[in-house]
Amino acid sequence: MPNILFAATTDRWADYEAPLTAALDATGLDYRLATEMPPEEVDYIVYAPNSAVQDFTPYNRLKAVLNLWAGVENVTGNETLRAPLARMVDDEGLGQGMVEWVTGHVLRHHLGMDTHIVNPDRTWDDTAPPLSRDRPVTILGLGTLGQACAKALRGLGFPVTGWSRSAKQLSGVRCLNGAEGLGVALDGARIVVLLLPDTAATENTLDAGALARLAPGAVVLNPGRGPLIDDEALLAALDSGQVGHATLDVFRVEPLPVDHPYWAHPKVTVTPHIASATRPESAARVIAENIRRGEAGEPLLHLVDRAAGY
Amino acid sequence: MPNILFAATTDRWADYEAPLTAALDATGLDYRLATEMPPEEVDYIVYAPNSAVQDFTPYNRLKAVLNLWAGVENVTGNETLRAPLARMVDDEGLGQGMVEWVTGHVLRHHLGMDTHIVNPDRTWDDTAPPLSRDRPVTILGLGTLGQACAKALRGLGFPVTGWSRSAKQLSGVRCLNGAEGLGVALDGARIVVLLLPDTAATENTLDAGALARLAPGAVVLNPGRGPLIDDEALLAALDSGQVGHATLDVFRVEPLPVDHPYWAHPKVTVTPHIASATRPESAARVIAENIRRGEAGEPLLHLVDRAAGY
Repeated sequence: MPNILFAATTDRWADYEAPLTAALDATGLDYRLATEMPPEEVDYIVYAPNSAVQDFTPYNRLKAVLNLWAGVENVTGNETLRAPLARMVDDEGLGQGMVEWVTGHVLRHHLGMDTHIVNPDRTWDDTAPPLSRDRPVTILGLGTLGQACAKALRGLGFPVTGWSRSAKQLSGVRCLNGAEGLGVALDGARIVVLLLPDTAATENTLDAGALARLAPGAVVLNPGRGPLIDDEALLAALDSGQVGHATLDVFRVEPLPVDHPYWAHPKVTVTPHIASATRPESAARVIAENIRRGEAGEPLLHLVDRAAGY
Repeated sequence: MPNILFAATTDRWADYEAPLTAALDATGLDYRLATEMPPEEVDYIVYAPNSAVQDFTPYNRLKAVLNLWAGVENVTGNETLRAPLARMVDDEGLGQGMVEWVTGHVLRHHLGMDTHIVNPDRTWDDTAPPLSRDRPVTILGLGTLGQACAKALRGLGFPVTGWSRSAKQLSGVRCLNGAEGLGVALDGARIVVLLLPDTAATENTLDAGALARLAPGAVVLNPGRGPLIDDEALLAALDSGQVGHATLDVFRVEPLPVDHPYWAHPKVTVTPHIASATRPESAARVIAENIRRGEAGEPLLHLVDRAAGY
């Protein structure tokens, strides 16, 4: 019966206890799962690098450390860790989460939900929004995530324009590329979704010039990377009305500082970097599968090459 | 050059002027469109039955009346109307609108958007919501609209249970039927969408007993018909926490009276009967096509049989 220590911050345990229990139960294993356990009894550590456990020396029968995070840069250098280290790989969860966030927030702005969610005047204005076919969406970035979002939005009837640095082809999507294509993608765009990678070339993609090309009152969604937006330019465009609303999931500094103007701006929605995150439900299944493998003597998945660092 | 009178309430003109102009321009016709015009010059009336025009006698060269509403019960008995009458048929718009409203509000509750839209404390809680595959949705009613919504939600990864009075089969959807099936569909349901018709048998489908079967904190979406819900029972379930939120588009009395407890309840969102509505954009295309046909000498679409009344 493996003893499993959950070593992460307290709030993570609230998120993970139920999914991890369910996923471990599903393996059919007999096991013990707890947040406190004598080190010498621990077989597996489900591990967040910011947990209190930093010295692995007392864990003398440890079979593996199963990282909750995709990043292992804070663990690989830990010389007290001799047991195998597996990182979190939850690609399906990450991509699906992005599709759900993007589709949900596009529909939110498309349907004008905010005026119904907060309606202190009890206004009954039964003007229906246009249909999706009359609400084009522009996606900047056509990597795995951008393509998945384009496909989901197409499925709901939105006309989709996608832009990428190099030429791509996507069924049912107007694909543009290069510097000139970017201008075309932005011209008159009504909903813009940023899913570009964070590179020197993409920094401030949405600057004052780019924002001026959008349709007046356009909506900006950024679930990609904070530096894609020139924050000063976006705030100015929100104030002038050129941009009608911005829903932002990523920022140059996270958590977004409480005194940042985005928090106070009536036309900005801040979501706390949740669009694409490891999900307890799917992450728990990845961890349970590795413990099942460990107990069955099968090779663990997603093992880290400690020398290479990933 | 046909002269087209737009005869409806003033707020409708604001909604229809641009789409109707665009749709008429697209026909290639030369035309005049206005809300005021000497009756003897009018060729077509784009007509809402609650407009000021009730006596058609002075419109002596009228070629057709093109109704903006699906319902023509307030026009068919008007003996001053001698010209052909066409009703509004916008099935695609109605069904697509429902899919967008249902998908949007399911995603809104699924993603917990409200806590981000209104977040005066600037709370940064980056606990990601579960993925759609872990959030089952129950749809009561599997007519055209229920089926379309089930398909869209399946496409986004939600496990869907559908219930209908008589047995139905739908690919990828757990289909239940009959009285016993209704109980199974409700047991532990976390998001329930009401798309049943309004009949004596469906009244108060969501009564106290049905609400008690849902998962604690369940979300209720009603874009179907007002009488499907026992309002007193729903308010009690919201107060007890058994229902976490209700988003309601239809009501026993509409507009919802300003003193109705739904308006004031923090766990209720009222949308003003917009989930499935004739949309100006698509309705304008239907009207423009009929004017094109009238001018080309082709038979009009959706002509009303005045004797039959529809």
